[in-house]
Amino acid sequence: MKKTVRLAKNAGFCFGVKRAINLAEEASSDHPEIVTLGPIIHNPQMVEHLRRKGISPVEEDDLPTDKPVIIRSHGITKELRKRLEETSPSVIDATCPYVDNCMQHAKQLSKEGYPVIIYGNKDHPEVIALKSYIAGESYILSDEDRLPDKRFSKLAVISQTTKSIEGFQKLIGKLIPSVKELRVFNTICAATSVRQSSSYNLAKESDLMIVIGGKNSSNTQMLFNICNNIVETLHIEEAEELDCKILEEKSNIGLTAGASTPDWIIVEVYNKIMKCFRDEEKLISKIKDIPGYKEE
Amino acid sequence: MKKTVRLAKNAGFCFGVKRAINLAEEASSDHPEIVTLGPIIHNPQMVEHLRRKGISPVEEDDLPTDKPVIIRSHGITKELRKRLEETSPSVIDATCPYVDNCMQHAKQLSKEGYPVIIYGNKDHPEVIALKSYIAGESYILSDEDRLPDKRFSKLAVISQTTKSIEGFQKLIGKLIPSVKELRVFNTICAATSVRQSSSYNLAKESDLMIVIGGKNSSNTQMLFNICNNIVETLHIEEAEELDCKILEEKSNIGLTAGASTPDWIIVEVYNKIMKCFRDEEKLISKIKDIPGYKEE
Repeated sequence: MKKTVRLAKNAGFCFGVKRAINLAEEASSDHPEIVTLGPIIHNPQMVEHLRRKGISPVEEDDLPTDKPVIIRSHGITKELRKRLEETSPSVIDATCPYVDNCMQHAKQLSKEGYPVIIYGNKDHPEVIALKSYIAGESYILSDEDRLPDKRFSKLAVISQTTKSIEGFQKLIGKLIPSVKELRVFNTICAATSVRQSSSYNLAKESDLMIVIGGKNSSNTQMLFNICNNIVETLHIEEAEELDCKILEEKSNIGLTAGASTPDWIIVEVYNKIMKCFRDEEKLISKIKDIPGYKEE
Repeated sequence: MKKTVRLAKNAGFCFGVKRAINLAEEASSDHPEIVTLGPIIHNPQMVEHLRRKGISPVEEDDLPTDKPVIIRSHGITKELRKRLEETSPSVIDATCPYVDNCMQHAKQLSKEGYPVIIYGNKDHPEVIALKSYIAGESYILSDEDRLPDKRFSKLAVISQTTKSIEGFQKLIGKLIPSVKELRVFNTICAATSVRQSSSYNLAKESDLMIVIGGKNSSNTQMLFNICNNIVETLHIEEAEELDCKILEEKSNIGLTAGASTPDWIIVEVYNKIMKCFRDEEKLISKIKDIPGYKEE
């Protein structure tokens, strides 16, 4: 049986994540120790990799006053930003520009008197940050949540950048009958939607999908859900979680990775699969672009 | 076999139609001859009824300059309104206030630089009027039409007041992926949607639906489509079109009527059904409210 392994056309690091990692690494060349407020991205392996370079995540309560602080890609609340600016010697803002754009919309809509619905997960740091910019009435709704039990003369809707477009479309559809003026900002990141659609397409042609990315990564979880609706799907963070046994009966393996998954982990997983197949081929095409990656 | 005839909870004249008829009748008490620009409502029987009172529809090219003119409930184009104001001795504006509200939104959105999509039928007078108030880019889309083949940074959507909410929801859903900011004014009239939902509910409990209203009435056609998807449905304009034969095998007859259907026609249809059933009961409860109706 001929076996194939294919990587989704769009997978791995997005613009905002690359930018955050680059900002952190640039800063670390000037400062031996830097802190990030929470994990800089939702990928434990990358966080560990940076820790070895002196870039460590800290919790809000443990913020040092003598080290530069990096605001991670998900952004932070208005209140916390104010506190950072008062207490930290230097603040490096690695908030994803698309997330920041979403916050600007939230602020403006609220100022214009629109109640705002955030389509997102209420515990996600991006959503928590976003909500802090809304002065007036607001709601956080995800797929299973009930709509507010009222009619609105006007209402705005924005989305966590990493939610699925299908869920967003459904929510908007459900809102229409009870709203006179609905103002929708489609703030779902293009990187998110192309990762979703290319994973979807690959899943349809595979008999096993492997989704690589942080267990705490919302966009990775979404890729898992999309693929798992189509075909048997595994969600792993790194190569060592992969058991060769599961590959035995499979002939078309599809690989995809969340926007916070570094390429070297994708390569490791690919090589692990190849090892399982007792094959010598390697996925080397992407090694060059990996920030901070050294061949071992 | 016990037979029942039930009238949908919401059926017949809506606020805007009642208002237009009342305005016309009030005006006719001062002027022996008045013209309406096109049929005042989409119901040939009511138009004929008014004609006998000296209120006659004329086409745009035959506009008299010596008689008062009534602008009908669907409204007219900006250009035609200007012309009327210049040439007619007096103009009575019977544009439905909900249609007028929709025009105000169209005008304002266009002024704010939004391309505007009108969800409606391109030949409907309301839609033709609406479009004339949009100075910039605009599109008229109905259910089968393809979306514009482009991405929009901002886009507004309004609806003909008598379209179905389900179709509107579907259109909005389809637009979302290709638009950054989508501004939706749900201008579907509540009277339209309650007529639709009460017809839908009644159809589910009937084995024949009879939809009464002008063959040229968009909202009546919509009621027909909704009912016809559920159960065998007839669309008639008046009682004489009803053939007793079709009722023979039916035991639960549902009646509904478009927003431009006068109550006396509903009563006539009901009486015709009762005659078919050789039964003496009459649906007399609504006769009182019918504008201009005299028992014969």
